[in-house]
Amino acid sequence: MQTLDTDRPAGVFTAVLTPFDETGAPDHGTLSLHCRWLLANGSAGLAVLGTTGEANSLSVEERLRLLERLVADGIPAGVLMPGTGCCAVTDTARLTSRAVQLGCAGVLMLPPFYYKAPSEDGVFAAVAEVLERVGEGRLRVYLYHFPQMSGVPFGPSLIERLLKRYPGTIAGLKDSSGDLGGMLATAARFPGLSVFSGGDEFLLPLLEGGGAGCITGVCNVAAPLAAQVHAAWARGDGTAAAESQARLSAVRAAFLGYPLSAALKAVLARHSGRAGWLRMRPPLAPLPAVAADDLLASLDRIGFRPATIL
Amino acid sequence: MQTLDTDRPAGVFTAVLTPFDETGAPDHGTLSLHCRWLLANGSAGLAVLGTTGEANSLSVEERLRLLERLVADGIPAGVLMPGTGCCAVTDTARLTSRAVQLGCAGVLMLPPFYYKAPSEDGVFAAVAEVLERVGEGRLRVYLYHFPQMSGVPFGPSLIERLLKRYPGTIAGLKDSSGDLGGMLATAARFPGLSVFSGGDEFLLPLLEGGGAGCITGVCNVAAPLAAQVHAAWARGDGTAAAESQARLSAVRAAFLGYPLSAALKAVLARHSGRAGWLRMRPPLAPLPAVAADDLLASLDRIGFRPATIL
Repeated sequence: MQTLDTDRPAGVFTAVLTPFDETGAPDHGTLSLHCRWLLANGSAGLAVLGTTGEANSLSVEERLRLLERLVADGIPAGVLMPGTGCCAVTDTARLTSRAVQLGCAGVLMLPPFYYKAPSEDGVFAAVAEVLERVGEGRLRVYLYHFPQMSGVPFGPSLIERLLKRYPGTIAGLKDSSGDLGGMLATAARFPGLSVFSGGDEFLLPLLEGGGAGCITGVCNVAAPLAAQVHAAWARGDGTAAAESQARLSAVRAAFLGYPLSAALKAVLARHSGRAGWLRMRPPLAPLPAVAADDLLASLDRIGFRPATIL
Repeated sequence: MQTLDTDRPAGVFTAVLTPFDETGAPDHGTLSLHCRWLLANGSAGLAVLGTTGEANSLSVEERLRLLERLVADGIPAGVLMPGTGCCAVTDTARLTSRAVQLGCAGVLMLPPFYYKAPSEDGVFAAVAEVLERVGEGRLRVYLYHFPQMSGVPFGPSLIERLLKRYPGTIAGLKDSSGDLGGMLATAARFPGLSVFSGGDEFLLPLLEGGGAGCITGVCNVAAPLAAQVHAAWARGDGTAAAESQARLSAVRAAFLGYPLSAALKAVLARHSGRAGWLRMRPPLAPLPAVAADDLLASLDRIGFRPATIL
């Protein structure tokens, strides 16, 4: 089991999938089992309630309940980095407050994402309002930069302003832009900021460039492999790190072209024998069986078999 | 005062602005006054809690409270068409249920808008799930097609599937795409659907093409003018209708290049003498005073002065 430095969380985080029960509600029991498996198999931290976890398809109440149940089920709050960014600052503040009260390592915060092309001042004001409403010195915020999905970037000048106004609270950034150069530039420019990649293929280059690790959906099935990359890098074994990274990147590549959450759920369903994993909350939809067959065959061809899940 | 055909609402709807008080909460008193003014000055219906009303920056609880207060304050529920579309079907269902219970004319429904490029099946499933959860024969849904903001269109084949599965319930469409040809094609293809334009400049051509009317932000200050267009068209006076439409289009054009909600609030603040109208919920921000001066001067130049507001 990986251990997490609670002062500066780093390493491999899984953007955890959310299973649903037959009524369409989050399946808390299966989620806790999955989280336990992840923690025992290479995931140092758990980014629940993110994009991969279909959190934006859950109400605030459903998200609060999910987080509270995880902690009640014995998942250590100190490894949790839940997504809390909503369109409404009042919702973001409510979720963020509860995450702090529960003792979460930090929160992963999307900017308000309905209104397109807001001013930088407007996004700054939104984050500031959430932080003021929460009013907790213990809060650690990881900004979530995913312009392709949110439409609202966290660019360098906004990061700089937030860091200057809220040093200590603004702890890091998850960069899902797919732009490695940008991630490396952010890590170099803000050494106090923990920069995580949203893509598995950037884990090693980002670690080598001063980044903190990765937070990815593929880790739902490939956390052990990502952990090997991180461990080899940490002990200075560049050859082993590169070899593991190549295998991890191949797994990631096999998922390209499939809707990620649906594809990951298809793999989990097959390997765990739990068909319930296939359920998704609209507007996302399960992967058609024929596509799942193709994906599984691709993973087989590269010798990847996450056979011990659950 | 315009009257609304409750069987098939049509005509001029205002996408009502939301005023905020000094604590940043919705200012229910001012909102009720504004709604009363709109109803007395040409707005047949009130599309509260839409894009213009910053609804996506309000929590579900704040939206419920706002709607309940309006009805408690004596605004007839039968003229209300609140926005209820959230990212989570559970939130959309909750808001929609309450709107039906309160007796609203209908609801204006955005599709789930976080996940980009969902499948048509996925969006259909999301709307279907909301309708099944609400389970109210009285429900009338107006689909909200605003691809530039939501990223998720309601295209013809999706509309057709929804109409076929939920005839009677799917009552209309608000089209904010800015594509008049598309609106006219939708109105022609689905005669049972009430098609509203999201842009003032399309009111008359859409009415002439079989559309139902408009639902616009500019009507917060220009409802009397839009009502003149509608009334002249309804009595068959094409010359008067075209003349009023030209004036309305000129007012709309004066707002181009300004963030719309902020610009409308600036105009209302100046003309009502209520500076509180300037407040906005982040990420949207008030119009700088110099920009407000320019906008007011532009409106003056075209002889537009909504001097009787409040």
